[in-house]
Amino acid sequence: MPVHDTARLLAFADTLADAARAAILPYFRAPHTVESKGSLFDPVTDADKAAERAMRALIEAQFPEHGVLGEEYGETPGVSGYEWVLDPIDGTRAFISGLPLWGVLIGLTFEGKPIVGVMDQPYLRERYRGWNDGAELVTDAGVSPLKVRACASLSEAILSTTDPYILPGDEGAAFSRVRQQAKLTRFGYDCYAYAMVASGTMDCVIESGLKPFDICALIPILNGAGGGVCTWDGGDASRGGQVLAFGDPRARDAALGLLR
Amino acid sequence: MPVHDTARLLAFADTLADAARAAILPYFRAPHTVESKGSLFDPVTDADKAAERAMRALIEAQFPEHGVLGEEYGETPGVSGYEWVLDPIDGTRAFISGLPLWGVLIGLTFEGKPIVGVMDQPYLRERYRGWNDGAELVTDAGVSPLKVRACASLSEAILSTTDPYILPGDEGAAFSRVRQQAKLTRFGYDCYAYAMVASGTMDCVIESGLKPFDICALIPILNGAGGGVCTWDGGDASRGGQVLAFGDPRARDAALGLLR
Repeated sequence: MPVHDTARLLAFADTLADAARAAILPYFRAPHTVESKGSLFDPVTDADKAAERAMRALIEAQFPEHGVLGEEYGETPGVSGYEWVLDPIDGTRAFISGLPLWGVLIGLTFEGKPIVGVMDQPYLRERYRGWNDGAELVTDAGVSPLKVRACASLSEAILSTTDPYILPGDEGAAFSRVRQQAKLTRFGYDCYAYAMVASGTMDCVIESGLKPFDICALIPILNGAGGGVCTWDGGDASRGGQVLAFGDPRARDAALGLLR
Repeated sequence: MPVHDTARLLAFADTLADAARAAILPYFRAPHTVESKGSLFDPVTDADKAAERAMRALIEAQFPEHGVLGEEYGETPGVSGYEWVLDPIDGTRAFISGLPLWGVLIGLTFEGKPIVGVMDQPYLRERYRGWNDGAELVTDAGVSPLKVRACASLSEAILSTTDPYILPGDEGAAFSRVRQQAKLTRFGYDCYAYAMVASGTMDCVIESGLKPFDICALIPILNGAGGGVCTWDGGDASRGGQVLAFGDPRARDAALGLLR
């Protein structure tokens, strides 16, 4: 396992996040086009595309040997083992609704393992940064460490998922079993809910149908804050699919028991 | 109908909102107590109470002849026809989850009719102000008018409600009929969803079981932005109950047809 220059890679992730902020903010709460991909409602904004193009150009210039996997423009293989995994606007439904709880997701994997992640909220000027061994929140007010909170049982847990109506039959039933045990459930926050788990104000996020670019950036943040992310069978979540993010391992174990 | 000194009353509502900001912000995302009222989960924070006490003290000092109706400390009758209707933290579930989409609601009624309203989001430093004939958003960047957007049919509408699971049987079925026609539905934004309708980024909010302090402040904002608020049978919403907020009257008519 090579030693990664984590500080340099995180600093470069900041550069990417700055570029995405500049590309996206002019579109937020302004008239913009919304296309539809396929039959499900899946908004894609000009902002999404502009931000991914800006980040790809920076990566090509600085790290031409790195691969890129982005939501909008697919995969460009690299030759180094490193791959940037980008979702320029995670939470497009919140974005088009004017709600400031979407985020820019910037992850870096080495041989498939997430090593660095940034979740940036441009309108709030909040940047969540993680590197598995630590995580922090950067705002105009300064830098503060991210730390999950204790949650001994689901009856104390604040839970989140994206949309109660998009989980198909079996998955919907599995989610309901957890929801009925939880103290409180919130809907529709996408990546921002993971940031709240890392911040210690929520306890679990449960989702399904995720793509790698929906989750890679968040794994080093959750790990670094003392929590984690796994699949519904307790495995590696870096490829997406059915995902559970948690602060306290006791809440993880209880949720996994109900999801299985 | 008397002529109200709207500018003075709005400026005083700002003073109340400033006091509430100062009282609440130290508690947001910090450890705080959560009590439970009755059998349903209904968090009440120290922040809620501190903010209402601060606002009540200012009203007593400035307008001792005005009444006050507040979520935490009930009704104090006045002798002038004016009553301040206060919800210090609307969206306590978002608040305790660390999500910055709760709001301070400050309404003023005269003989029961809402004449001035403020919805303040202290963390975002966003203040939505309305006086039926106009409405505006005040941020650190300046003042901009609030204006609803056109929405010719529900198939174009972004809809919001607080929680898909709290509506009882008949109301849940009525809401589902609207949801199935809408382009997109978002959950859990409380007062912030109304601000998005006034801002022209969402189209309808549908809720039930509201108290007067949940809605009074929002009516002059929605009216002033060119939309409105009514009950599910099209009547006066200032006492709460089953409420529909809308931007475009065509969306209102379509929603009312399905809710009845």
